[in-house]
Parts: sequence; structure tokens; C-alpha cells
Amino acid sequence: MDNTLLIGFAAGVLTAISTIPQIIKLIRDKKAQDVSPVMYFVLLAGNALWCYYGLLLDELPIIVTNAFSVVCDMLMIILNYRYSKK
Amino acid sequence: MDNTLLIGFAAGVLTAISTIPQIIKLIRDKKAQDVSPVMYFVLLAGNALWCYYGLLLDELPIIVTNAFSVVCDMLMIILNYRYSKK
Repeated sequence: MDNTLLIGFAAGVLTAISTIPQIIKLIRDKKAQDVSPVMYFVLLAGNALWCYYGLLLDELPIIVTNAFSVVCDMLMIILNYRYSKK
Repeated sequence: MDNTLLIGFAAGVLTAISTIPQIIKLIRDKKAQDVSPVMYFVLLAGNALWCYYGLLLDELPIIVTNAFSVVCDMLMIILNYRYSKK
């Protein structure tokens, strides 16, 4: 795997898993007042478009990392809705 | 500009600006207890790598959108540190 591909793959994995610490914190603390739901709707739209972009280019790394991000964004929106009323 | 490039550009802009609603919320509410700082360190690393990836490919859209994200991530880390002690 050449250097550039490796860097792109590492970048994709890092940006894809970046939401996980926030998901863990929400589940653990059960509080979300300070978290912006708008951010995750915008992120969801952006990651979904990146996924579609990857499909158009037939680039599996772009499809997989952004599909994972889409799932994380949806989870964040649900958790944010559930815990922000507390 | 062909369709695929347009979708990639739109995706890049959306993911780049996605942090802005969270930044506005922190500055307005001056509270950050529920926001995970770890998320923004991981995101910073990922976006910085995407920026480097764009430099290697000499792809201006990837460089510009991710450089903007890096600035937003740094701002989030500073705001998070400042307002999470309150």
C-alpha cells in the first residue's frame, strides 16, 4: 500500500471514529445540554454526500469510512434528543 | 464543473462547517461539560492528515476544506478547555 493511500486511509479512520468519544460520554453521563444537535444534522448530510461521492468514484475506503460516520451521526442525533431533555 | 466534483465539494463544505453550530453554542451558553474534548483531538488529527493527504495529491478542495476544519477543531479544543471548568 503506497504512502499516500496509507495517509488517506488513516485520516478516514480517525475522522470516522472521532464521534465515538462523544457517544461514550453521552451514554455514560446521560446529559447533552451543551452538545449542538445542529452540528450532527450538518455532519450527517456531509458524510452522506461523501458516501455518495465514494459510490460515484467506486472508492471503497471513502464509502466505508463515511458510511460508518453516517451511523455514528444518526446515533448522536438520537442520543442528543434523548438526553438533552433531562 | 462535473457532477461528481460538485458533490465532493458540497460534502467537503458541509463537513468543514459542521463544527460551527457547536462553536456558536459554546460561545453563547459558555458551558461545555457535556462536550467530549477527546473527540476534537481525534478530529484534529484526522483533519490534519486529510490536509496532508490533499497536499500529497495536490488537490486544493481537500486542502482548503480540511485546513478550515483544523482551525475549527483547535478553536473547539480551546473553548472546551475554557468553558468546561465552569
